[in-house]
This record gives sequence, C-alpha cells and structure tokens, in this order.
Amino acid sequence: MIKYDVIVIGGSAAGIPAGVTVRRHYPEKSVLLVRKEKQVQIPCGIPYIYGTVMSPQKNLIPDGVLTKNEIDLLIDEVTDIDRKKKEVYTKSGKTLFYDRLIIATGSEPSSIPIPGLDKENVFMVKKDVPYLEQMLEVMDGVKDLVIIGGGFIGVEFADECNKNRDINISIIEMLPHCLILGYDEFFCEKAEEILEEKGIKIYRKNRVNAILGNDKVSGIKLADGSELKADAVIVAVGARPNVEIAKKAGLDIGPTRAIKVDRFMRTSDSNIFTCGDCAESTSFFTGEPIPLMLASVATMEARVAGANLFGLKRENPGEIGVFATKVGDVALGSAGLTERKAKDIGYQVVTGEATTINRHPGGMPGMTNIFLKLVFNGKTGIILGAQVQGESSVGEIINALSACIQHRMTADDIAIFQCGTHPALTASPVAYQLTNAAESAIQKMIRERTRDRVPV
Amino acid sequence: MIKYDVIVIGGSAAGIPAGVTVRRHYPEKSVLLVRKEKQVQIPCGIPYIYGTVMSPQKNLIPDGVLTKNEIDLLIDEVTDIDRKKKEVYTKSGKTLFYDRLIIATGSEPSSIPIPGLDKENVFMVKKDVPYLEQMLEVMDGVKDLVIIGGGFIGVEFADECNKNRDINISIIEMLPHCLILGYDEFFCEKAEEILEEKGIKIYRKNRVNAILGNDKVSGIKLADGSELKADAVIVAVGARPNVEIAKKAGLDIGPTRAIKVDRFMRTSDSNIFTCGDCAESTSFFTGEPIPLMLASVATMEARVAGANLFGLKRENPGEIGVFATKVGDVALGSAGLTERKAKDIGYQVVTGEATTINRHPGGMPGMTNIFLKLVFNGKTGIILGAQVQGESSVGEIINALSACIQHRMTADDIAIFQCGTHPALTASPVAYQLTNAAESAIQKMIRERTRDRVPV
Repeated sequence: MIKYDVIVIGGSAAGIPAGVTVRRHYPEKSVLLVRKEKQVQIPCGIPYIYGTVMSPQKNLIPDGVLTKNEIDLLIDEVTDIDRKKKEVYTKSGKTLFYDRLIIATGSEPSSIPIPGLDKENVFMVKKDVPYLEQMLEVMDGVKDLVIIGGGFIGVEFADECNKNRDINISIIEMLPHCLILGYDEFFCEKAEEILEEKGIKIYRKNRVNAILGNDKVSGIKLADGSELKADAVIVAVGARPNVEIAKKAGLDIGPTRAIKVDRFMRTSDSNIFTCGDCAESTSFFTGEPIPLMLASVATMEARVAGANLFGLKRENPGEIGVFATKVGDVALGSAGLTERKAKDIGYQVVTGEATTINRHPGGMPGMTNIFLKLVFNGKTGIILGAQVQGESSVGEIINALSACIQHRMTADDIAIFQCGTHPALTASPVAYQLTNAAESAIQKMIRERTRDRVPV
Repeated sequence: MIKYDVIVIGGSAAGIPAGVTVRRHYPEKSVLLVRKEKQVQIPCGIPYIYGTVMSPQKNLIPDGVLTKNEIDLLIDEVTDIDRKKKEVYTKSGKTLFYDRLIIATGSEPSSIPIPGLDKENVFMVKKDVPYLEQMLEVMDGVKDLVIIGGGFIGVEFADECNKNRDINISIIEMLPHCLILGYDEFFCEKAEEILEEKGIKIYRKNRVNAILGNDKVSGIKLADGSELKADAVIVAVGARPNVEIAKKAGLDIGPTRAIKVDRFMRTSDSNIFTCGDCAESTSFFTGEPIPLMLASVATMEARVAGANLFGLKRENPGEIGVFATKVGDVALGSAGLTERKAKDIGYQVVTGEATTINRHPGGMPGMTNIFLKLVFNGKTGIILGAQVQGESSVGEIINALSACIQHRMTADDIAIFQCGTHPALTASPVAYQLTNAAESAIQKMIRERTRDRVPV
C-alpha cells in the first residue's frame, strides 16, 4: 500500500501552495499531490491566452515547484475517500493511505438552464489545456462572439478576444452593469466605457434565453425577444465548487455549497483540511459564509491549511476579497466591501474620494490619473473597502489597502499612513491617494457631526 | 494688526499639508501661510529637473492648493516670534498675530568643512528656483561632474545628469556603498552596478579634501591624494534642519538639532506646532530621536500637527522611514530597518527573501523580476523592515509593506496576507513576493528552533 503523511487532492492555486506550505512547516513529512490534469493552467491567466500570450502552453504552472519542494506527483483522479481507513481510491485503481488529507478540488464553470448549450462553438471557461487549445483555434475564425456574463472573466475575455481580430463582440449581463459584484457604479461605468470605445457591445439587464443554430451555434435569443448573430459563445457566469468526493465521504457542506470549514481550514473531519474554490469562504466583515472564488483567496487558505496539519498555527480571519482587473490600459482594483454592499449589510457608510496623478511633477514619464474611493463605517471610522482606478501600480495599491482593511485601520489611521513616494513611481506625498481619500471621508464625518449638533 | 487663527511658516511638503489639514479639520478658522519663496519646488523632484523634466518651472507645487483651501498666502520671511504676545514679525516689517502657529521651515543642504566651496560651479541642492535654473544652464556645458555624496540625491543627480549629455560623472562616497544608509548591501550593489554600466564612476570609502581651481572649479582632491578633473561639483551630503527662528524664540531643540516635539507635534510651547524637516523625528522602533528628512515624513507630521491645533486628535506613532528611488530602469524601495540597522540596535534578526516575476504567466507584457527582503525580530516574529527591487510597482509594494510594519504584523500574519493579484499587474498569488518572503523567514525560524532543541 502506498502511504503518505500528507495527500493533497488537486494541483492548482490551492493544491500547490498547500503542498509547499506543508513542506515548509513540516520538512520531515512525505507529501503526495494527486491531480487529474497532465498540465495545470494558471487560472487567472486563461483570458490572456486569447489576445496576449496566444497559447495555453504559455499559461502553465510548471511542475518544478513540486519537484523543488520534494512533493511527489500522481496524475490520476481521486474517486473516493474512506475516512475511517484514511484511504483514498483513484480511477486507475490505486489505494493511497494518508495521515492528513487536503482537498483542493477547485471549481467548475457554472452553467445556465437554457437550450442549445451543447451546440458546437459554445464554450465554458474550463481549466483544461486541450479544451482551451481547441477554443483558441476556433476563435481565430470567429466573426461574431457573444459572451454570456459580464463579470471579470467575461470582461477580460471580451477585451482579449478583441485584440488583433476582426471580430464583433457582445457581452450579455443580467445585472445593471458589468463587474457590478466587485465595484461600485463609477468603476463599472469606466470599464464599460473603455469596452464600448473598442466597439464591444454591452447588453445590460438582459439575459440569453436560448442558443440558436443547428449543430453549430448561429446566434442567441435574448429575453427581450431580439436575436444576435453568433458563430461562437462563451459562457462566463461564475463557478461552482467541486465537492462531489467530499460529499460522498460524508463531509459537511455549507450554505454556499462549498465544503464547510473552521478557522483552521479543517473540515468536519479533523484529519481532512480543505482550501480554495471548493472550501467555504467566510466574510471578514460579517463572519457569514460567502461565495468567493479567487486564486489569491485559494493561496491564503492553502497557507493556513498547510501550516495547521499537525498542530494549529494559523487562523483564517475571514476573506476580505481583494482583486484587480485591467480593461484596455486602465487597471481597476477592489478590496473589501463596495459602498453598495456595505449599505446592504447595514452599515452607515461614509466614503472618501481622491483623484491624483501617479507621478510628481506631472511631467514625469508615465503620468496618468489615479482615482481612489474608500468606504468607511461612519459610526466607528473603520475602513470597510477600497476601489481604485489607474495604471498598473493599482495591482499593488490595492494590496496596501488590503493591509489597511486587514488591520481595521480607521480613517484617522489612514490619514497619517506612512507612505513612501518617488517622482518617477508614485503620487506626491502632498496628494497621496490613500491619505487624501481618508481625509476627504473625515471631512464629511466632521460636517455630519456639526450638522447633527442639537442647539442647547 | 493682522490677526489669524492659524499661521503656518513655510510652504513646502510640510507647510502645505499642514494648512490643508487645518482647513479640513477646522473649517471656520482663518489660516495664513507665510513663505519666503515666490515659487515652491517639489523637493523630491529636483534631481529630475536635470535629465527628465528639464526646467524648475516644470517642478513646481502650484499655489492652487492654497486658494482652493482658502488659505491666505504671504510671501515674506518670518524673522522673529514673540510667544508671549503670540506675534510673528517679518522681514518686510509686518506684525502678524496668531492663535496657533505651525513652524514648517524645512532644512538647508548640509555643507562640508573643505576649502573651495565658494568657487564658481560648485552647487548645493537648494530648493530655490533661480539657483536651480542657473545650475541647469551650467550643467549643459559640463564635461566633468563630481558629485560629493552617494545618498539618494547624489545617486539620482548622477543618473539624471547623465541623460542626453556627453559628460563624465563621478560620485564620491565616504561609506562603503552608495545608498547604504537606506538599504542593505545587495540593493546598494545593484544600484552601483547600474550606475557603473552607464559609465558613472563611484569612489567608495573616499572623501573630498579640497575643491581646486581659481575662481571657477577645475577639479577636486581626494583624501587618498589623487585628483579628479571637474568643471562642476554638486555637494549632496544631507541636510540640516532650519531652526533659527525657533531657537531665537526659545523653543526646545532636540539631540538631532531639530525642534523638539511630543507625539502630537507640539513644541515646548503648546500653542506652537512643528512638522517636516525642522521637526525632530522619533524612531517607530526604538522611540529615540532620529534624523530623518523625507517629504513623505513631512506630510505625515503635517497631518498630525494640523489636526491637533485646537484639540488633540492624532498621535505620531514614530517614523518608520519609507522611501523609494529609481536607478536606470530599476526601482528600489525600503521601509523600516535594514538588516544592518536592526542588528546595530540589538535585535536578533531573521530575514526572509523571495524572488518572483511581476506578471503571471511570464509571457505577459512588462515582465521583470522582483526581489524582496523582509527583516524580522527573530524572537517575536514581528516585521522590522523591508527592501524591494523591481519595476515601478515597487513604489506601491513598499507602501503595502509600510502598512505591515505600521501594524507590527508577524511573519505568520504576512504569510497569510490577503493579496490581490492579476496576470497583467502583479506576481502570481502562488509566488507572491510578500507571502513567500515571510514563509522563507518562518522556515529559517523553524530550522533554528529544531537545531536549538536540547535532547532530553
């Protein structure tokens, strides 16, 4: 019988860092990673195959990270877990014994209940190399592309497929704006404006009722009855956790249909941990289960799970949700709660805004605008969220903001944030986005208090 | 008599945000800013006049920020303060009454005790438009430039003056490396390597003993007796606080020769506040006075001082020291203590390092390496410092690190940092610099503990 101290099921953004974390924290333990894919895609890189890197082979997570960390690799599919015997069984007939198990089986693209999904040239965004290769081949001949769903993946696919191709692209989004689950209206509208300037059509508050055509897709029918021509369709309406083997093994499943976990990323079986898209996330703010599937969340959870296997070391404080995207040349970052979401939860919200330039003086090369919006709890002054628009430094600005949220900084704390600045790299310290947006919120709070003052 | 609720003396990186902060927090107060310069330079932008923006007129802080915030401006020089009468007197003969006073008189370039400093074409780095204009005119004819001092300003001047000019540049640094007060050796050597590749000569552990020439500089004499040709010299050996009027007014001066302050940025007179280069900084780590003159520090102190004028609202937790520079195409950031400095203070230090690429996959445009070093207190795991090398995103990476330091995060906290990532903007979440450098330190601490274990 093959026996390992630790078996990790799944080899993507959760499984790999989980294995590596085990190796770092428990150098003496044997670790096996079992995954079904021969090659592993960088999940967030998938849209960029279609306009920038131009091949799934250039979007691989190399196996070198496993070899370097002395993690054995088995390409096979786990079909069952026997928790009493601490054994897993694979499709090829292997029985593997574990002392600790990490389930990192990820997610599958969600589907929609409409007719015609089985037609040729209707694609889901699967993390599967041959499938993505075939999709790339097809894409090069496409004249009319319909993307169902205007979330990150839909928007990024639209922007990428539009590069170097003579193609008409339409995005169908059932909500009032693209990206509206991640950003407030201002930022969504900016993204939509850029897409529309590039000739991409956006159908808001609309739905696809049917995919038309014989064997091959020829168009789609919208809920309002109108039809659009299409020789390819991409369905990008979210993802659902892969929890089949966990369910079969009798592990508890949470309200978001992901595997239930405690703060240590333990499942209902204390020898089995889970992380990534298949594991349930908990809001940093409300403490309630939330559906949140991001590679960066997966790696954080993996670093909690992996460190805790043989003794609890780390707690997951709840997921903040930090992400960025790029539309055209504009980068958009978001961390924590949007204003809308914060109000929905029940906070009395005060926002702070700042517009600045990312260089000082403005004549320095690469000058462009940064717009930052901060969302505060108006009662306590504690930061709840942040959204930023700018150039590529947005990718790290949003991480500075994530640190502020993780530490529940108040607007006053942020107003005296100790920033570093440089003419060629950042805004001026006098006009630094973080401090100025915080001061703008404080000013509103001061005005509010003055107005509320009851005359004696 | 002219009477203001608040008078701010000085109109640069401390005076402006101090005035703006007063306006934000005390909308009903009258504010006057008195400064001697007709036009104000962006202090950190000065080196970039000489190779990039090419005019001091393109490196101005516009007065619009004062107008917009209803801050009156008087161009004049304050010569005396009468603290009992709460009056200030100006060179032009004005008497101004204040209720609260903010001294933000900044610093002057330090000099060195060598002969020949008065020769023509020997320059200090003054924040003075006509002086800088004259220096720019001269620079365009210079064949041999000697820069005395290899700190930020010296290095940035060397890199800039070298652009689009047929010029020989030498830097004379008395310490073993350029930038060594801000970075550990690895980063200093990287900066030096880039400068030397561009043909800039660096004389380490060396000093200038004399400036040679008749009326005009013709060369310099080094401490080792050798001579270098020079038709211009820039002295960039630091700065000293401008505290004359504070001294005359009898305010306490601290051990670093800056104006003594408490955590609220009050001087020894509770109606007089100070901020910026003329105010004494206190180490975030040791609580002791330190000389630290940065525009970003000035703005933070100004936001503390301005908010506290009529009731204490904010405390300065001590200065961390966060900064970045760019040498060639490489950006270098530093926050908090270097490894060397931390050891000097007496910490048992553990470092963590990570090398990664700033995109995922690597084929995304703009790909380059990031190297991050974290410095931890080995006994508590709390972060003490960080240094990073990479492209322009370093300017904001160092701010995320500043947030970690401000909140005294441990290596474990940072290992599960909730980062946001994106293929076109950042490293992969699996290889994210912050988390991986923290894990690398933790691995060392685990190994250390295992080795120290006494057998029973």
